[in-house]
Amino acid sequence: MVNRKEIEAAAERIEPYILKTPLIDHQFNRDSGRRILLKLELMQKSGSFKARGAFNSILSQTVPDSGVIAASGGNHGAAVAYAAQVLGHTAETFVPTISSPNKVARLQNYGAVVNQVGTEFAETLEACLRRQEETGALSVHAYDEPQTLAGQGTLAREMEKQASRAIDTVFVAVGGGGLIGGTLSWFEDQVKVIAVEPKNAATLNKALEADQPVRVPISGIAADSLGARQIGNLGFEAAKNYLHSSILVEDTDIKAAQHYLWENFRVTAEPGGAAALAPLLTEQYKPEKDETVAVVICGGNVDLNSLL
Amino acid sequence: MVNRKEIEAAAERIEPYILKTPLIDHQFNRDSGRRILLKLELMQKSGSFKARGAFNSILSQTVPDSGVIAASGGNHGAAVAYAAQVLGHTAETFVPTISSPNKVARLQNYGAVVNQVGTEFAETLEACLRRQEETGALSVHAYDEPQTLAGQGTLAREMEKQASRAIDTVFVAVGGGGLIGGTLSWFEDQVKVIAVEPKNAATLNKALEADQPVRVPISGIAADSLGARQIGNLGFEAAKNYLHSSILVEDTDIKAAQHYLWENFRVTAEPGGAAALAPLLTEQYKPEKDETVAVVICGGNVDLNSLL
Repeated sequence: MVNRKEIEAAAERIEPYILKTPLIDHQFNRDSGRRILLKLELMQKSGSFKARGAFNSILSQTVPDSGVIAASGGNHGAAVAYAAQVLGHTAETFVPTISSPNKVARLQNYGAVVNQVGTEFAETLEACLRRQEETGALSVHAYDEPQTLAGQGTLAREMEKQASRAIDTVFVAVGGGGLIGGTLSWFEDQVKVIAVEPKNAATLNKALEADQPVRVPISGIAADSLGARQIGNLGFEAAKNYLHSSILVEDTDIKAAQHYLWENFRVTAEPGGAAALAPLLTEQYKPEKDETVAVVICGGNVDLNSLL
Repeated sequence: MVNRKEIEAAAERIEPYILKTPLIDHQFNRDSGRRILLKLELMQKSGSFKARGAFNSILSQTVPDSGVIAASGGNHGAAVAYAAQVLGHTAETFVPTISSPNKVARLQNYGAVVNQVGTEFAETLEACLRRQEETGALSVHAYDEPQTLAGQGTLAREMEKQASRAIDTVFVAVGGGGLIGGTLSWFEDQVKVIAVEPKNAATLNKALEADQPVRVPISGIAADSLGARQIGNLGFEAAKNYLHSSILVEDTDIKAAQHYLWENFRVTAEPGGAAALAPLLTEQYKPEKDETVAVVICGGNVDLNSLL
């Protein structure tokens, strides 16, 4: 696990490159007067919190002339390509042949070379590994490395500093475990951290049941961002130590959360980015009267068509 | 004109009901390192700054049992309906028969009775006035009343308080003159306030040329929010006293500003809401090296289809 000191160091390292995203104090329920804090991390550079980990990884290692390399057409790939561009490194990415033209174009806009290889991600990943051995480029992992966790942990630190009152409870969506791992590493047992996952991508939930990381089936509207097949070891360890609880949500409730965020704030959260809000909207979780709840809206890389 | 004291009073009056919208410190140009401040007022309740003026108007007057009434299917109508709902008053609105189902549904969602009358807005307005005489409901003007200006002026006050450095220059889009009037009433001659209008809705620009409010032809993508046919007297007077300059922009540049805001922050600005950013993107205005520029993104009530 990483500690608060490493997260402090990461925060200082990445500060010139990332956006201090807004923390909104939102009157959630007009009748009860209940408020929640919304951390609008979907506004982050490259469209998700992944920019924090990517910058921290790249800045804390030596980057060879062959630059950086990553296998991802999603938020991780975008974050690595963006960070490489800003820091003046070349970036090479590998994505499956079925990747949407939108995602490929985004990587190219950030200046990355995009290789479309394989119909299954395993094939894509293998091609990426072979290429990495060939060029010696710095490989940046999506979630299961200490620098990544420390980078993602800066979100929790930033939120704590922004809040005008002490946060009791934080809702965070879980994919591979980088964000929840970083969040738990920052808050430890001082804050109730609650993991939110789609029922059909319950990577952490199933691992906690099995008491070890296990492979789970993945599907549904948030699969592209929260659909890691197995929780990372670092994220799992942090969850074992500090997680308060795990909540599973329906795809329809994730969609409702996306619409709620657009209706109220004119922001476009992607399904994985809106998921953490769902348990509050469905009242699967009802905060106590004086409980200060914060919800991390972690990504906005949505196809606008899907919001219509 | 209204003064700073009236704006202070308005801020206190409306504070429980409005959102303190984020002020983003954005690295605008990576090469030069230039930053701009973006006031994301499109996240405001009811989707635009109009909520400020609507709450201030309604809260500073006695509302009869017949409630409030307004002729507008746009941001003003939405703000009045929203404020009435929150404050427990009934609201009646009049909109032209050609209003989009989206806009009508929004008013109805805020609990307003919606009357669709007339193909021309003049006819709609006349029906609204007749109905007001009948019911005695409180009529809330869209821009040309002191309470409205004082409410909109709270945006300038809030931005000044949020900024970590002194603001030199503010860009504000102009429709009927409520927002620019309130902004100028707050900053007076202490800040360079620059008015931005579409070339084909140059209500203030033409009035300044003629040295009096004049009727202007209105068209283009921002007409629904910036398309007042004639600048209000209060806004015009404030502009005569304190405005630094007026810039006209093309519809295509407004569209580019909308896309820039979505690409960078995942927010959906409407054309009128994004217009104030256009002169910086086109470099019609180039800030000095140490000039602190703030841009008000004032509305987000866009049809998502138009962003695709």
